[in-house]
Amino acid sequence: MKLTPQEMHKVLKEKLIKYGVGEEIAEKSAENFVANSLDGVYSHGVNRFPRVISYLQKGYIKPDNLPACVSSFGAFEKWDGNLGMGNSNAMICMDRAIELAKQHGIGCVALRNTNHWMRGGAFGIQAAKAGCVGICWTNTQPNMPAWGAKDRRIGNNPLVFCVPRGDGYVLVDGAMAQFSYGAIESAKLAGQKLPVCGGFDSQGNLSDDPAEIEKTWRVLPIGYWKGSGFSIMMDMIVAALSEGNSTTDVGRLGEDEYALSQIFIAIDLKGTGQTGDEIIDRIIEDVKASERVDEGREILYPSEKEQNIYAVNIKEGIPVNDGVWEQILAL
Amino acid sequence: MKLTPQEMHKVLKEKLIKYGVGEEIAEKSAENFVANSLDGVYSHGVNRFPRVISYLQKGYIKPDNLPACVSSFGAFEKWDGNLGMGNSNAMICMDRAIELAKQHGIGCVALRNTNHWMRGGAFGIQAAKAGCVGICWTNTQPNMPAWGAKDRRIGNNPLVFCVPRGDGYVLVDGAMAQFSYGAIESAKLAGQKLPVCGGFDSQGNLSDDPAEIEKTWRVLPIGYWKGSGFSIMMDMIVAALSEGNSTTDVGRLGEDEYALSQIFIAIDLKGTGQTGDEIIDRIIEDVKASERVDEGREILYPSEKEQNIYAVNIKEGIPVNDGVWEQILAL
Repeated sequence: MKLTPQEMHKVLKEKLIKYGVGEEIAEKSAENFVANSLDGVYSHGVNRFPRVISYLQKGYIKPDNLPACVSSFGAFEKWDGNLGMGNSNAMICMDRAIELAKQHGIGCVALRNTNHWMRGGAFGIQAAKAGCVGICWTNTQPNMPAWGAKDRRIGNNPLVFCVPRGDGYVLVDGAMAQFSYGAIESAKLAGQKLPVCGGFDSQGNLSDDPAEIEKTWRVLPIGYWKGSGFSIMMDMIVAALSEGNSTTDVGRLGEDEYALSQIFIAIDLKGTGQTGDEIIDRIIEDVKASERVDEGREILYPSEKEQNIYAVNIKEGIPVNDGVWEQILAL
Repeated sequence: MKLTPQEMHKVLKEKLIKYGVGEEIAEKSAENFVANSLDGVYSHGVNRFPRVISYLQKGYIKPDNLPACVSSFGAFEKWDGNLGMGNSNAMICMDRAIELAKQHGIGCVALRNTNHWMRGGAFGIQAAKAGCVGICWTNTQPNMPAWGAKDRRIGNNPLVFCVPRGDGYVLVDGAMAQFSYGAIESAKLAGQKLPVCGGFDSQGNLSDDPAEIEKTWRVLPIGYWKGSGFSIMMDMIVAALSEGNSTTDVGRLGEDEYALSQIFIAIDLKGTGQTGDEIIDRIIEDVKASERVDEGREILYPSEKEQNIYAVNIKEGIPVNDGVWEQILAL
């Protein structure tokens, strides 16, 4: 089925309010679920909504808590998420980083005790739409082994870089694992191999077989030791700056993922010089003119695929799995 | 042979001055070459020195030019490197980012028209030693194909994250290519395979054979499409914020690599709360206690290897290839 953004927003907002979420938070949160779905990131949009409701039910997400600034140092602030809704907490903190950037050229908010932010890219786009470069990342529960390890003690910690381009943006939003758990599971259900190796099998060999990887859950960091190192450092920085939980600490809370630490940096590109459009257009033009490996396969710039999906979904409606939507309506 | 840091510094500084570098710049630049060598990063320390002299001779590096602030917006400044010495330019700009962070909580310098910074990690360590989180990256000449492309139009753009830990630091400094050109060449000369696939052979298959990869120079981004996306975004951000050259623009200057764009961000960890040591120690302890793939192989935290090498080199002297040192003495 297909839904208009308005239809989807109305239902998600109503359901959030039904589970105790305050009106203003529900408005913001539903907006984020819809925007992610419009861009085709269903896994962190509409498809994840039932899990968020279950986290409200379990009490991990405090439905009516707002984040608050706990200490301020000019262009840098520490905030406490008070275990509120993850995506609206993140929107509020990136908004604050943008305000700080408008005042100081650059602004940064380190946020502790927050919840899963759904799609990190959304907050990069938020910065770009305000004329800022957006940089943000989150830690996660332990879901990936460090390089050389078998058991999962580090996070897949997604890293987001976004730059304004005209009224739009260019974005990269990439987790430090080669594949998400969702991607591995989907490939297994479809009886397909992964496009490249995504983890280790029981014999300790690299494997592109999702069923074999699921036996060990030794998922592969991007660039092997490199992604492992980036993940550990991102966790250290975000936990130290927010004085919040590290991935290690989140793991000790139990099986579920809550009370995370995040960082939001905005740099006022449009307020501090050229918009950069000409530079960015030149890079895109050059990259897209590359000699192709597969003549029929266009070279895409980061986020081009999602922006193409957005253009279709905004016209034709957001495709939603019937079963998922029934599940949501029944909540 | 082995050299004390003092011996190495004296010779490198003298040689720089001989090629027209100003006394103060030569002092800083030599300091950086020595520090990188002390940490075992010889490829971006002493071993790279002759190439820097050749760039001075070719006129790419202007020996006596200092970087200068061209515009200031509170905690964010744009600087022009005036094509001066790359490593001392970067030291000066990270110092300025640190000063801004001490004043505003966070500080950022975007630098254009600069030269190769040798080891990016050095400037992360510089921030950490001042009690700051350090984040920086540079663009490069086109040296890697975008995902899906055959020809090299994007950079391997190293990304640096560093956090203070006591009087020390934890650091990651990773290029967006799986292996450097140097690493591929060394493996070929040693007749060895790479530890994992590092590029494509002439048939378009992934390969761990350095000789095959050298035939195409289709080197592999970390995480395949992910590293390609990160590289493009890092280039866009650094070129747009500095109003400097992108990798595309650098490629159009010719075969050699100069007039690069860089960004330096410092966040005053020690001035804005806890030092974070306890959090960082807990992460390190947890990661190092992982179940090992190879019982005899310790799990290392990022930069632990380099810090171990430093501990040996500072006691026993810096190992230097005899041929390299003769070459330097003859300059």
